[in-house]
Amino acid sequence: MSSLQTSTDVTKNKGTTIVLFSGDMDKAIAAFIIANGAAAYDHDVTIFFTFWGLNALRKEEAVPVKKGFLEKMFGWMMPRGAKRLGLSRMNFAGAGPKMIKHVMKKHNVLTLPQFIELAREQGVKLVACTMTMDLLGLQQDELLDGIEYGGVGAYLGDASEGNVNLFI
Amino acid sequence: MSSLQTSTDVTKNKGTTIVLFSGDMDKAIAAFIIANGAAAYDHDVTIFFTFWGLNALRKEEAVPVKKGFLEKMFGWMMPRGAKRLGLSRMNFAGAGPKMIKHVMKKHNVLTLPQFIELAREQGVKLVACTMTMDLLGLQQDELLDGIEYGGVGAYLGDASEGNVNLFI
Amino acid sequence: MSSLQTSTDVTKNKGTTIVLFSGDMDKAIAAFIIANGAAAYDHDVTIFFTFWGLNALRKEEAVPVKKGFLEKMFGWMMPRGAKRLGLSRMNFAGAGPKMIKHVMKKHNVLTLPQFIELAREQGVKLVACTMTMDLLGLQQDELLDGIEYGGVGAYLGDASEGNVNLFI
Repeated sequence: MSSLQTSTDVTKNKGTTIVLFSGDMDKAIAAFIIANGAAAYDHDVTIFFTFWGLNALRKEEAVPVKKGFLEKMFGWMMPRGAKRLGLSRMNFAGAGPKMIKHVMKKHNVLTLPQFIELAREQGVKLVACTMTMDLLGLQQDELLDGIEYGGVGAYLGDASEGNVNLFI
Repeated sequence: MSSLQTSTDVTKNKGTTIVLFSGDMDKAIAAFIIANGAAAYDHDVTIFFTFWGLNALRKEEAVPVKKGFLEKMFGWMMPRGAKRLGLSRMNFAGAGPKMIKHVMKKHNVLTLPQFIELAREQGVKLVACTMTMDLLGLQQDELLDGIEYGGVGAYLGDASEGNVNLFI
Repeated sequence: MSSLQTSTDVTKNKGTTIVLFSGDMDKAIAAFIIANGAAAYDHDVTIFFTFWGLNALRKEEAVPVKKGFLEKMFGWMMPRGAKRLGLSRMNFAGAGPKMIKHVMKKHNVLTLPQFIELAREQGVKLVACTMTMDLLGLQQDELLDGIEYGGVGAYLGDASEGNVNLFI
């Protein structure tokens, strides 16, 4: 009995979670490459989007929602969606991301929006952190459809099940 | 016997460690939200403060200690305590942290110093990295009272016991 | 049988992997201190160098290889080798790294190139991410001799075996 239970636990260990805190395009790409790779190896995969990482989930178009002044400010200042993220270094006012996108295309690497789409097809759980959504004034209508919402408890529940748990 | 031992190991697996390398307020907040959440779920939690992360543990007031020139320089240039940390992005010479603090207050989210206090009440182990303290010239008198001190061995001892191990 | 197998699995759990994404000297030092510490505690240790982290593996001298225009640009703009990396903060156009190197020497802390050498002596597996090498136009001749090459699958294979898995 006990052995059986333990071996179930060991099997369950095939979990990968990523806290995507960063709003940088290069870090988001790294996160999705790892997440998609892990999903291909049959891991249960969760990406928990918090703080600036939420920007990768924003819809491209502006969504008319009612907001306070500070929330509007945050909304204006933060990039709207995966296509508009900058680089963590060598950003050069947007020239860096263009260079990276160019070489990614040349080497047949997916774009970040394509990586996000692939992750959803592979069943990667995308969870938006409700607490930081409140802080930054982001509303569900402004984020991609079909994602999940949760707090740190939801994240810890998934992270406790696996052993590849990264903060990016 | 063997099964019993294994099941003890599995139970022990409920550990969470965070290396807080960053000196950014937003990353420190994320670290403490995860740490406090994990402590609430009965994990053994350790935060290991290294490099710029040590600044979150500095006392607010200047502490008169004897130092060499470079160590004094580091002391002057680095923020003194959790209240003075900047943001990893949108810092705008200190306007960003004020905005974040404002929305955190509005949404009844704890401040970073309150998060630190809560962590201590919940038994989260706060460990200052002695090697980087030496490098940056920080002395025990300059850091909050009642924290622990250790090196990479102390960190690895705790990290080996758990499976949620993050570098922030 | 089953118990035995499980206890083997638990033993195998002594693994440490680090994704070194960052090209900052301070973060690379932190990565190698943890990696060398874990190797000293008999963990199987892998550092997977991706994106800007690859710069730590570049040979110091320029290596004449044939490249496209964008690849040449990346090559020129990125630092060549561990000695030339900047700091994640307080870089001050190169004054910060000099200060850090000075205090490291004063406190008898190894330099980053020495940490890399020690890691190799201790059997730490250094793996360069082939996908980002392609993107950034880095070729095997430009990186240190004797390292390994692999993709996200190689990384996940090692990470699945251990429980201290960090993204730096």
